[in-house]
Amino acid sequence: MLSTRHLLGIKDLTLEDIELIMKTAQEFKDVLNRPIKKVPSLRDVTIANVFFENSTRTRLSFELAEKRLSADTINFSASGSSVKKGETLLDTVNNILAMKVDMIVMRHASPGAPHFLSKHIKANIVNAGDGTHEHPTQALLDSFSMREKLGDLAGKKIAIIGDILHSRVALSNIFALQKQGAEITLCGPTTLIPRHITELGVKVSHNVKETLKWCDVANVLRIQLERQQIKYFPSLREYSLYFGISKQMLDELDKEIVLMHPGPINRGVELTSDAADSHHSIILDQVENGVAVRMAVLYLLAAQN
Amino acid sequence: MLSTRHLLGIKDLTLEDIELIMKTAQEFKDVLNRPIKKVPSLRDVTIANVFFENSTRTRLSFELAEKRLSADTINFSASGSSVKKGETLLDTVNNILAMKVDMIVMRHASPGAPHFLSKHIKANIVNAGDGTHEHPTQALLDSFSMREKLGDLAGKKIAIIGDILHSRVALSNIFALQKQGAEITLCGPTTLIPRHITELGVKVSHNVKETLKWCDVANVLRIQLERQQIKYFPSLREYSLYFGISKQMLDELDKEIVLMHPGPINRGVELTSDAADSHHSIILDQVENGVAVRMAVLYLLAAQN
Amino acid sequence: MLSTRHLLGIKDLTLEDIELIMKTAQEFKDVLNRPIKKVPSLRDVTIANVFFENSTRTRLSFELAEKRLSADTINFSASGSSVKKGETLLDTVNNILAMKVDMIVMRHASPGAPHFLSKHIKANIVNAGDGTHEHPTQALLDSFSMREKLGDLAGKKIAIIGDILHSRVALSNIFALQKQGAEITLCGPTTLIPRHITELGVKVSHNVKETLKWCDVANVLRIQLERQQIKYFPSLREYSLYFGISKQMLDELDKEIVLMHPGPINRGVELTSDAADSHHSIILDQVENGVAVRMAVLYLLAAQN
Repeated sequence: MLSTRHLLGIKDLTLEDIELIMKTAQEFKDVLNRPIKKVPSLRDVTIANVFFENSTRTRLSFELAEKRLSADTINFSASGSSVKKGETLLDTVNNILAMKVDMIVMRHASPGAPHFLSKHIKANIVNAGDGTHEHPTQALLDSFSMREKLGDLAGKKIAIIGDILHSRVALSNIFALQKQGAEITLCGPTTLIPRHITELGVKVSHNVKETLKWCDVANVLRIQLERQQIKYFPSLREYSLYFGISKQMLDELDKEIVLMHPGPINRGVELTSDAADSHHSIILDQVENGVAVRMAVLYLLAAQN
Repeated sequence: MLSTRHLLGIKDLTLEDIELIMKTAQEFKDVLNRPIKKVPSLRDVTIANVFFENSTRTRLSFELAEKRLSADTINFSASGSSVKKGETLLDTVNNILAMKVDMIVMRHASPGAPHFLSKHIKANIVNAGDGTHEHPTQALLDSFSMREKLGDLAGKKIAIIGDILHSRVALSNIFALQKQGAEITLCGPTTLIPRHITELGVKVSHNVKETLKWCDVANVLRIQLERQQIKYFPSLREYSLYFGISKQMLDELDKEIVLMHPGPINRGVELTSDAADSHHSIILDQVENGVAVRMAVLYLLAAQN
Repeated sequence: MLSTRHLLGIKDLTLEDIELIMKTAQEFKDVLNRPIKKVPSLRDVTIANVFFENSTRTRLSFELAEKRLSADTINFSASGSSVKKGETLLDTVNNILAMKVDMIVMRHASPGAPHFLSKHIKANIVNAGDGTHEHPTQALLDSFSMREKLGDLAGKKIAIIGDILHSRVALSNIFALQKQGAEITLCGPTTLIPRHITELGVKVSHNVKETLKWCDVANVLRIQLERQQIKYFPSLREYSLYFGISKQMLDELDKEIVLMHPGPINRGVELTSDAADSHHSIILDQVENGVAVRMAVLYLLAAQN
């Protein structure tokens, strides 16, 4: 059993929680590879997907996870909703819950929004991204995908490369990887790495070639064009020149390296197309594993009730 | 059996219709409190939710009601639709019906739109709000919620407070409550109460404190910021000063009073937060009852075919 | 069995393919006229409806076809998606497929987009409209509807009237009808008929009255207001004056004629209201048949795997 009724962030999980999620996700991944992909586990559980920010892959991945588990689902998105009429977050969610909803999968622009809610409502909450804070299911699927390639992550060298500052994926990955005993180096331009991040016990590098030499896994983050304040940022051309990763760079390392990216990829910016599509890349495995990991999270949280 | 094939407005319902809906809703409410909330009643019935205006709670509530009844549902919203390509309302709906849809749940900006349709199509129609005219399922769930607290409504004193002029909820409530024998007072600023409304046999007051002293139930309506022509309106600050209701005002009455609101609440305008969250309030019961009442309406209309 | 794993366009289909789809669609039409409209044929098949352009009737028709076949469905629309974040089409679709999706129903503004994808992905693709190129399921449902009225189409005279230039429906109809041995005349203003279209072996007329005298079927296309470059176009008033069709025009022909339109109709432009609603019209049969034809296409493609 998990130690928590909600998945708000990786920070709150124990190593045992992570191990249980990994083990359960593997079981669901096996199910998804059978012709009959549906299990009746969450029949009679109603889940609301409440997205105050747009999302494609995360919402689809959760929706499919819910359908594979036979849950009933309803979708709420902020556009076209009472949020525009000035309703508070808590009122919106309480209204949804009053309709006998058991779990809330929630994305919100404000860091801490799901944590706030968890203190006021009874339903299980899954944080599907809160601003630049955490995106725990992404970190869990990243860990799951790394473990498929590398086994136990203790002592493994993981580089997180790119826009750390605007990324909720980075923070959740740091927490997840440290709990599993991995070493972490963050790599990117100084303007995209928060100043005090080394207090978390990670190394920082501004040299992508050395970072690639060092690591077993390069988890390359998206340049969040849509979140940037332009002025402090290197231009995309500069970024791609100094931090972009090509297949040639990976091949020249002359070692096994695992290339990851949470998507959507800016081809030609973080990664060249040949790198993204190379045998080093497990980017589409990450997407596939996402459904299994989300099934595991929903299943384990529902069991808490 | 209902006396009608459509739920266009409360005006057309008989008292027997209302009683049948209330009784059936209670049965579905009992179902919703069981672990297995789904019933097979509308298996093989296809329902289209056709929303020409945005809505959150109403659409979600209908969708959940349909799912709990095992109906097949499709959602049509005006944005991203052929409505933008200049198609007529009747053509749009006839197209949906040609796909073998049995029932239409419809919200439209124009008063009378569902009545117009009912003369031209064979499917059952449920009016989910037509402009400022009627919103019959809201009135039915309001009556259901009042009856849970007060029993029979004959002789009970109900105040409807706030923006009567722009509210379809007010008109439907007046019809529903009068049929059940309740006394009604409308309370609000002169600019938000239609001039000839007393012809319907309701009292009008502009003094919220006296109204609260008088009534058993205060059904407080939302200030429809999004529908206002600004100029004739008291400012929000003035409104809240003269018509806003606080917990202290309710406590000082020194009697049982039931506080209702159809949502979304403008906290600090119609109601202070402590009033909305007080023991007087049954606002979230209203939301919960909404699903049961809508299940009853859909179930009873489907039985007409 | 079909000769193809995808339905990209009518051009690639054999006559045997078309006959098989027609026969299968008839079986599903019979199912849709039973009280229990659902069949378990595509249980455990997951279909993604990927719409990069807005659509009402086509998306709803596919969605209903999928539900009647008991498929699991997910909906992806470009608005609110990673497409806005600069992701490539192939990455978007590969991400969806990595979630174990079996079939893609896709609408895209670019001619050839589904053909491009079919070379890179494993899932079955159904083209639900690619720019002004093809819209194969529309042509199949048009043929199905014509055959219901006229039987075998060999030697039958079909007029396609209106905006040929901007219409994917026209091109798909030409391919479908020629394979079935029908004679085709295109009729419209010179500015709305592509110059080299006669190379396809169709006749061109600019006289709607003569065309109506000649034909067994008048398939009237929508003036695609939203696709026009205004300047070369006759005004709507001119169009309606010279090419609009009224009930009187049809009645005066003093013969059986079948009137069709893919919708949405601009009433008063292509067709007067009394023509659209006359006994000549099979416009709503087209919509009804659309669900059966799409069920047939999805069913037959799924059987290829």
